[in-house]
Amino acid sequence: MISYNSDMTKFTVSPIGYVKSPYKEQSGTPIQPSFGEPVEAEIRVSSEFREGLVDLDLFDRIWLISWLDRSRPYKLKVIPYRDTKERGLFACRAPSRPNPIGISSVRLLSVDVKKGILRVSGIDLLDRTPILDIKPYSPKFDSFPDEPAGWLDESIDQETADNRFGSED
Amino acid sequence: MISYNSDMTKFTVSPIGYVKSPYKEQSGTPIQPSFGEPVEAEIRVSSEFREGLVDLDLFDRIWLISWLDRSRPYKLKVIPYRDTKERGLFACRAPSRPNPIGISSVRLLSVDVKKGILRVSGIDLLDRTPILDIKPYSPKFDSFPDEPAGWLDESIDQETADNRFGSED
Repeated sequence: MISYNSDMTKFTVSPIGYVKSPYKEQSGTPIQPSFGEPVEAEIRVSSEFREGLVDLDLFDRIWLISWLDRSRPYKLKVIPYRDTKERGLFACRAPSRPNPIGISSVRLLSVDVKKGILRVSGIDLLDRTPILDIKPYSPKFDSFPDEPAGWLDESIDQETADNRFGSED
Repeated sequence: MISYNSDMTKFTVSPIGYVKSPYKEQSGTPIQPSFGEPVEAEIRVSSEFREGLVDLDLFDRIWLISWLDRSRPYKLKVIPYRDTKERGLFACRAPSRPNPIGISSVRLLSVDVKKGILRVSGIDLLDRTPILDIKPYSPKFDSFPDEPAGWLDESIDQETADNRFGSED
């Protein structure tokens, strides 16, 4: 029987690699990958995981699952980048979350399996952000172009971050 | 200076809630949410996080970030569900991964903030799967309908799992 309250279960994650990106701080970094093109970045994958990169070059787009290591402690109500009103955190893509895991769909430019280097564009991640997983993007699984997107449909036109979710004060 | 090899960095994640789904074992469970409709399931969110669910009802589709707790230890080369050929793990959506984090785009049917219950359809997750995060789905950030999807474009027509990545033997 699972208790849904006061859960003390913990799991451990460990980076498979890191981002090498031109973005060194949150201010000015695109808030979503789609606003980040055509800036290029690299994903450096640790040697022990490189064999798993085979065939990734067959894809034009990939998901980067990342650990948003420089986000502030979370609050359950936030004013997101693209709004002026306070919203529930889970209705936002803000980086400060109970488990600060990011999902970024980025364009894949090249894969060097041997060196463990992916070149990507359209990244929204800070330099040195830990990468936890890489998955292929599949329109069949991931693309729902006609979904209404709540307040994001009427949101204001902010495409880069300020420092409201950053750890730099 | 970050070392990209033999990384000993660890981060800890903890569930914000759990899935209550009709799928009790991997065999027969949809391998992706888009194959799972119209089966309904619930996400039960722990009381301490419920305030963050406000405004989520404005969205028709959400991302569930989950911990795939019943997947086998990973291998870097796998024969995925929808292929007959061995592929690099990161070119697959197989659940057995170095960090077994799943991303599932599901349809959101209703939100009860007070009780912490989301009703969703199109789920591909086993009953009692830990949920690490919930994010709104936004076509602007997430939908790329025309991307070529590598070997998945020519893949065989398997829509439900067998037990190849399961822990049940």
